[in-house]
Amino acid sequence: MAFQYLTNVDMEQAKEEYCQILEANGMHYRTETIPVTESCARITANAVYAHICAPHYHASAMDGIAVKASDTFGATETTPVHLKREQYVAVDTGDPLPEGCDAVVMIEDVVKEEKGVCLYAAVSPWQHIRQIGEDICAGEMILSSYRTITPAAIGSMIAGGVLEVEVIAKPLVGIIPTGDEIVPPTTDPKPGDILEFNGSIFSAMIKEWGAEPKIYPIVKDRFDEIRTMVQKALEECDMVILNAGSSAGREDYSCQVIQELGEVLYHGIAMKPGKPAILGYKGAKPVLGVPGYPVSGIIVIEQFLKPLIDQWNRIPARPAIYKEAVLSRSVVSGLKYREFVRVRLGYVGEQLVASPLSRGAGVVSSFMKADGMLEIPQEVEGYEAGSHVQIRLLRPKEELQNTLVVIGSHDPLLDEVADMIHRKDPGIFMSSSHVGSMGGIMAVRRGENHAAGVHLLNEKDGSYNTAFIEKYFPKGGVRLVECVGRTQGLMVTKGNPLQIRGIADLTKPGLRYVNRQKGSGTRILIDYLCKKESVNPRKIYGYDREEFTHTSVAAQIASGSADAGMGIYSAAQLYDLDFIPICMEQYDLLIPDHAWDSPMVQELLETLKSEEFRRRLENLGGYDVGNPGQVRQRF
Amino acid sequence: MAFQYLTNVDMEQAKEEYCQILEANGMHYRTETIPVTESCARITANAVYAHICAPHYHASAMDGIAVKASDTFGATETTPVHLKREQYVAVDTGDPLPEGCDAVVMIEDVVKEEKGVCLYAAVSPWQHIRQIGEDICAGEMILSSYRTITPAAIGSMIAGGVLEVEVIAKPLVGIIPTGDEIVPPTTDPKPGDILEFNGSIFSAMIKEWGAEPKIYPIVKDRFDEIRTMVQKALEECDMVILNAGSSAGREDYSCQVIQELGEVLYHGIAMKPGKPAILGYKGAKPVLGVPGYPVSGIIVIEQFLKPLIDQWNRIPARPAIYKEAVLSRSVVSGLKYREFVRVRLGYVGEQLVASPLSRGAGVVSSFMKADGMLEIPQEVEGYEAGSHVQIRLLRPKEELQNTLVVIGSHDPLLDEVADMIHRKDPGIFMSSSHVGSMGGIMAVRRGENHAAGVHLLNEKDGSYNTAFIEKYFPKGGVRLVECVGRTQGLMVTKGNPLQIRGIADLTKPGLRYVNRQKGSGTRILIDYLCKKESVNPRKIYGYDREEFTHTSVAAQIASGSADAGMGIYSAAQLYDLDFIPICMEQYDLLIPDHAWDSPMVQELLETLKSEEFRRRLENLGGYDVGNPGQVRQRF
Repeated sequence: MAFQYLTNVDMEQAKEEYCQILEANGMHYRTETIPVTESCARITANAVYAHICAPHYHASAMDGIAVKASDTFGATETTPVHLKREQYVAVDTGDPLPEGCDAVVMIEDVVKEEKGVCLYAAVSPWQHIRQIGEDICAGEMILSSYRTITPAAIGSMIAGGVLEVEVIAKPLVGIIPTGDEIVPPTTDPKPGDILEFNGSIFSAMIKEWGAEPKIYPIVKDRFDEIRTMVQKALEECDMVILNAGSSAGREDYSCQVIQELGEVLYHGIAMKPGKPAILGYKGAKPVLGVPGYPVSGIIVIEQFLKPLIDQWNRIPARPAIYKEAVLSRSVVSGLKYREFVRVRLGYVGEQLVASPLSRGAGVVSSFMKADGMLEIPQEVEGYEAGSHVQIRLLRPKEELQNTLVVIGSHDPLLDEVADMIHRKDPGIFMSSSHVGSMGGIMAVRRGENHAAGVHLLNEKDGSYNTAFIEKYFPKGGVRLVECVGRTQGLMVTKGNPLQIRGIADLTKPGLRYVNRQKGSGTRILIDYLCKKESVNPRKIYGYDREEFTHTSVAAQIASGSADAGMGIYSAAQLYDLDFIPICMEQYDLLIPDHAWDSPMVQELLETLKSEEFRRRLENLGGYDVGNPGQVRQRF
Repeated sequence: MAFQYLTNVDMEQAKEEYCQILEANGMHYRTETIPVTESCARITANAVYAHICAPHYHASAMDGIAVKASDTFGATETTPVHLKREQYVAVDTGDPLPEGCDAVVMIEDVVKEEKGVCLYAAVSPWQHIRQIGEDICAGEMILSSYRTITPAAIGSMIAGGVLEVEVIAKPLVGIIPTGDEIVPPTTDPKPGDILEFNGSIFSAMIKEWGAEPKIYPIVKDRFDEIRTMVQKALEECDMVILNAGSSAGREDYSCQVIQELGEVLYHGIAMKPGKPAILGYKGAKPVLGVPGYPVSGIIVIEQFLKPLIDQWNRIPARPAIYKEAVLSRSVVSGLKYREFVRVRLGYVGEQLVASPLSRGAGVVSSFMKADGMLEIPQEVEGYEAGSHVQIRLLRPKEELQNTLVVIGSHDPLLDEVADMIHRKDPGIFMSSSHVGSMGGIMAVRRGENHAAGVHLLNEKDGSYNTAFIEKYFPKGGVRLVECVGRTQGLMVTKGNPLQIRGIADLTKPGLRYVNRQKGSGTRILIDYLCKKESVNPRKIYGYDREEFTHTSVAAQIASGSADAGMGIYSAAQLYDLDFIPICMEQYDLLIPDHAWDSPMVQELLETLKSEEFRRRLENLGGYDVGNPGQVRQRF
C-alpha cells in the first residue's frame, strides 16, 4: 500500500527543464487580429506601423485667420499690413489649412477693419500650423513587437490609421477538476462532499496572468473518463491543468493518464506544499498534474504554469519584491524540500514583522490572509524566532505600512473593529492573529504588534490583566485600554441533553469536551476553575483537544463531535448552542507606548468609543459595555 | 472675439473642492450582487461572513484507517493492539470520518493481519483529522468591507458556502464626443476630419481605474444636441465626460450646457496642458468638460476623474512612485500654471536621465513614449539642463533599468533594431530620441545615452564622424561602431514636376523646400552642399521650415505642401517620392566606453551583426551594408 513518488527533483531545475522541453517541442503563441479599441493590455505580435500621418492634413493650431505668409512680410507696429477679405480665411483650431495659405495668425493679433483685417506683425511660413505628421508619420513604427498596449498606444494607433492589430492570442488553459467526492459549489454540502473551488481560484489567477481559463465539468475517478477529458482538453486548449489525483491515493490516475497520452517529465518535486505535482506534456502542450489541496495547487500553478504563460506571452517575469522581516515564531522545515510558508506582515515602527500563518495545505484562507511568502530553501532546516528573513511581498508596501497589527486573544469583535476602521478610512487596514492572551503579551514584549487582546485572570484576587502586565513589563511602556466585559461560560449542545450544570459535570462518563489552546485566557480560566472546584482535568475526555478560537470550539460542539467547551456567549449564540454562564471577565487591549500616537492606533481608539461599535456589540450579544477606548492604567 | 476663462484656479485646490462638493451632494457607490466566481478584483461592499464551516465535516487528513482512539490506548512496540474488521474503516484523504471514529492512523503505520490490523502505537483523539472549521468557521468574517477580492478570497468564500457577494458596482462613465469635425476612426479620412480616438483612450483608462465606460455617438456642435445628449448621459450614467468644446472657439458650448443643466464649479484650471477643463456637476453626478487635444484630455481625466472613481470605489489613491533624474534639456514653464511634461527616462550607469518629449497637446504619441512625468509647480519657471528633478514614473523601474537609450540622429533602421532586440529578449527595451547627430554627441558627453546615431561630414576632406569625435572627445572614452552607408539625396514630388536636378535648382521661383533642424547631420550636409555649389540658402523658400526626421520631411512633400527636401532613400521610398541621389554617407553609432559591457549594448552589437538585420535593411532600401557592429575606431 505504500507509495513512492517517482522523483524528488529540485524545483528550479524542474521548472527550467519543463520550460525548455516545451519550447523545444514547439510551444509558441498563436496570434489574432482584433480591433484596436479592444486591445488595451494585450501584447503586440508584430511591430505596428502607421498607415497615415497624424495629423493627416495641415491643421490650424489656433483660432484665428489663415493667410499666405508672404502677404504679411514687412508688417510692423508702424507699418501694418492690410489684408482684403479674399486674402484670409477665418479658421478654428483643427480646421484644415485652406488652399493657398501657409500660416495662421492668432485671433488675438488680428484687428478687424471695414474691408478686411489689419496685422501689426509679419508671420513666418508654417506658423501656428500643426503640420502633417507632427504626431506620427505614415510608415513610422508606432509600437514594436511584444509590447503591452496602453491607452495612449490605442490613441496613437487610431491616429495613425491602424484600426486592427495583431496581438498574441491568450493561451487557453483547460482546467479539469477530478474526484468522486468533488461537487459544484453549494451552501448545503453533504458530509464527504468537497466543494469544487480550486477551478475558480485557478481561473482567477490565470486571468490575472494574461491567459484564458476554461473549466471542464467535474470528472469522476475513472481512468477512462479522465483520459477522455484530458484528450478533449488537449485538442481544445493550449495548456491543461489536471486537478487532483496527482498524489498517492488508491484512485490517483493523473500520472497514468498523462503517461499514456503524452510524457511525464517529473512526478514529485522537492517542494512543500506541492510535492505531488506532475510535470507532464503532450508535444508542445503542457499537462500539469496539480494536487487537490488548494494551497498546494496555488503554489504549483504559480511556480510551473505562470512561467509558461509568461513565455507564451513574451512577458519577462517581473521580479518579485523582497523585504527583510523579523520572524515572530520559529519555523521548522525539512531538508527534503523547499518550503513555502505564508506569513502575515506588519510594520511596527520601522520594523517589518513576519508571523507564519497556518501551514495546512487545505487552509485556503491562509492564502487570503497572507501578506507575504517566506521561501525556505531545501538546504535550510528552518529559522529561529527573531531571525531576519527575506519575505516575498504579496501586498504593496504602503498597505503594510498602514496596517494595524493586532496579535493576541481572539474575540469576534476584533473583526468588526477591523471592518469599521477600514470602512471609515480605506487607506487603513487591520490584521489580527489569534495566539491567545499570553501570546499577545509576548508579542508586545518583542515589539511585533500595535495591540493585543488580553483577558488574564489573576487567580489570587480574581482581578484581570494588571498583575500579568506588571509581571511581564516591569519597566512599563504599555497602556491597558478598556474594551468590554464579556460573559464566559460553558457552551453545550442545544437543549443540553447531558444536563451539564457546571465544571464539576465535565467528567461525566461519555461527555466529550473540546478545549482551547494553552496560553489562551480561556484555557487559563478553565484550568483555574478546575482547580477551584477540585476537578481533575485528566478525567475530562478531550481536555487535550485544542482549538484556537471561541468560534471553532462552538463549531465542534455544533457538529456533534463534542458535547461541551468553554467560551464566550457570542460564539454560543452564533451556533445556536445552549450556554451556561460562569463568569464575567475583562477583555482589554494592551497597547505599547511606541505605537500609541500612530494614526492607526488613534483610529482604533476612536472606533472603540463610537456608537457604531456599541451597536455592533449588541448584535453579537453577551457583552457588558462600559467605556471602551478609555485608558485603564498606564504602566 | 477674445475669450476669458472664468477662472485660473490652483489645480490641487480645485480637485479637493470638486471631490468635496460631489460627496456633499451625495455621490455614493451603488452595489450589486454577483456570483463569487466572477468577483475577482471587485471590491466588497460589506463584510462577508461564512455560511458554513470549511471543512464542513470531519475529514481524514491522510490515507489510512479511521479508528476510535480509545481502542488503541496502550499500544506500544512490544504490546501491539489488534483491531478487528468492525473496529476500523479504510479511508482516503478527504473522506468523512465514519460514525464512531475519532482518529486516523496513517497507512504507513498499519500492519495488515488475517483478521484485521495491528498497531504498534496508540493514537490520540483527533489525530490526522481535519476538524470542522479548521480553515473557516461558520459565522466568521471572511472579508471585511471595501476589500479587493483576490483569487484566494474567491476560494475562501466558496469554501465558506458564500456563492454570491455584494460588491461595489463600477461607476458608469458616459463619454460624449462632440465636434462637427469629429469622425469615427477610419484609415481614409478627408482633410479636416478629426479621428475620434479620445473616447477609446479614455475608455481604456477608465477601465483600468475600475469603472465602466460608455461611449455615446458623436454629437455635432449644436447647443441643443449637446444639451440633449448630456441630459441622456446624466440619466444613464454616474459620471459624464463631455469631450471638447471646453475651450474658447466659436462653437464651444460645453460650459453653457453644463451651466444650464447643473453647475460649473470652475472653468479654467491653472494647469498645462488642460487649462480649459470644466469642473461641472449636476447634483451628485460630475460632468467634466475635457479639452479636445488628447494629451490635455488624458491629463485632465487623470487629475479630476480618477480621484472621483477612487472615491466611489473606496480605493485609497496608490501613491505615485517618484525618482530623482537629471534633466537632459532645459524646460521653461510659465508662472500661470502647473505644467506636466512627458519625459523619456533611461538609466545610464546609475544615473536616471530624463529627456523631455514633445509638449504639443496634440501629440498623443508622446504619451505612448513617455516613461515618466515631470510636474513643474506653478511657482517654478522651469529647470536648467542638468538639474536634478523628481519624476513620476509611468513604467516600472526594472524596465527602465533594462532600456537601451539611443539619442542622436534619426534613421528608420533604429526602430527595426529596437524591434529585433525586444523580440529576441522581451526583458530588454530600446528607446530612441531624434535630436540630430550633434545632439547625440552632446548627449554622450553628458552621459545621457548608451548610443548615438551619427553621420557628420567633415567638409575639409569629405570624411565622416571621426573629426567631430576627436574634437568633442579630446580625452577619448568612446568607440565608433560601423552601422551602414546610406544614400542621401533630394526627395521630390513623384514625377519630379519641377524638374529638380540638384542643389542649384532649389532656388527656382515657386519651389517650396522643407528642411531638417539645425544640428542634424542632414542639415549640416545641405548647408555644406549649398556652400560648395555657391547657393545662397536665403534664396531657398522654406529653408527655415524645420522637421525632425527624414520621414516627416518626406511626409510634407507627399502632402503637397513642399516640393523638395533632403533625406535618405528609404524615406523617399516609403512615401513613393522621386529621389535624386547626392552622396553616400556613413551612418555610425557612437558608444561610450562606460556602457560598452552592458548586456543591452552587447545585444545591440549582436543585432547589428545578424542576418536578420541585413534582411530588414534590404526591405527599407538605399543602404550599403559592410560590417555593421564592427568597431571602426576607439577614441
